[in-house]
Amino acid sequence: MRILLIGASGTLGQAATGALGAHELITAGRNSGQHRVDLARPGSVAALLAEVGRVDAIICTAGNVHFGPLTEMTAEQFNLGLQDKLLGQVQLATLGHRHLNDGGSITLTSGVLATDPIRFGASATAVNGAIEAFVAAAAIELPRGIRINAVSPTLLTESVSTYGPYFQGFETVPAARVGLAYQRSVEGAQTGRVFRVL
Amino acid sequence: MRILLIGASGTLGQAATGALGAHELITAGRNSGQHRVDLARPGSVAALLAEVGRVDAIICTAGNVHFGPLTEMTAEQFNLGLQDKLLGQVQLATLGHRHLNDGGSITLTSGVLATDPIRFGASATAVNGAIEAFVAAAAIELPRGIRINAVSPTLLTESVSTYGPYFQGFETVPAARVGLAYQRSVEGAQTGRVFRVL
Repeated sequence: MRILLIGASGTLGQAATGALGAHELITAGRNSGQHRVDLARPGSVAALLAEVGRVDAIICTAGNVHFGPLTEMTAEQFNLGLQDKLLGQVQLATLGHRHLNDGGSITLTSGVLATDPIRFGASATAVNGAIEAFVAAAAIELPRGIRINAVSPTLLTESVSTYGPYFQGFETVPAARVGLAYQRSVEGAQTGRVFRVL
Repeated sequence: MRILLIGASGTLGQAATGALGAHELITAGRNSGQHRVDLARPGSVAALLAEVGRVDAIICTAGNVHFGPLTEMTAEQFNLGLQDKLLGQVQLATLGHRHLNDGGSITLTSGVLATDPIRFGASATAVNGAIEAFVAAAAIELPRGIRINAVSPTLLTESVSTYGPYFQGFETVPAARVGLAYQRSVEGAQTGRVFRVL
């Protein structure tokens, strides 16, 4: 398969690369990879898809949200995640289906905060909850057998030094296990699913 | 209690009014009510809260999203719901807590599409999913015993003539039942909950 992987240089992107090494991967990212893309910039996702041409799968392991105290969060801060991680990924469905071969797939990334909130994570919870709900809705409208799923990882073992203090008492998973979830979404047959890696 | 009700003139707003008639209701809406508010306009929610002063509860029964085919939905159309029904209601938590008395409550409105998608409803599903996830996160950060819940109604019996064709085979509920859910959120003691009225 020919697979577009957005966020390829990150920890999740590297894990997806490891699990999908049998395929032709086209990499994209904000600052690295074969193609540049900024999920939050209008037109950037459309431009990426036009550059890359037809593919069999689109995977996104990228997406930014603001972390901070709910009681001080501004509308602009909350909107960052809506425009970047949420709307950026949504466009991979609303635009991406036209660039996918019949039976192709779209795999988005949400995260454990969708269902297990932490302090300072209200924006991430809303964005991840939206993505997990969205894939079930998109799955019933995508044409030509095109599938869509989300991978929802908990805190990565590799990320404990950076994010551990916010996730008190959370068990972690090695990124390689999350890589398998991307493989399962791309090579499997399910659609409208959230693959939780906990 | 002194209660700010946004969307008071709508079917849900009237149902909430019916269930909460024992309290002092301050009404707000886009085109009617004692105060004007446009959930999607930056600064409008803040201005409303400043006008109204201290209250014991905030209820929102308003919020717009775009309905249409997923495969033709533009980023701008999808963003309408993110800015209006989602970010507009989120601000009732991020800003509203400062205007609530100790032990006050915030009640948002999501909807059945959060978990039961229909054709043309992908944006509503994402927005409602975000709201339902958000209240669980906001509940753990709100200070001074302030609570937050969402009411998630299915198709209203009163709305069948308008929306029925999109909700094939859905059972409906009379708006008065949804009004009880708003009462339960405001007068009860729970927080971080989604009250589904199905």
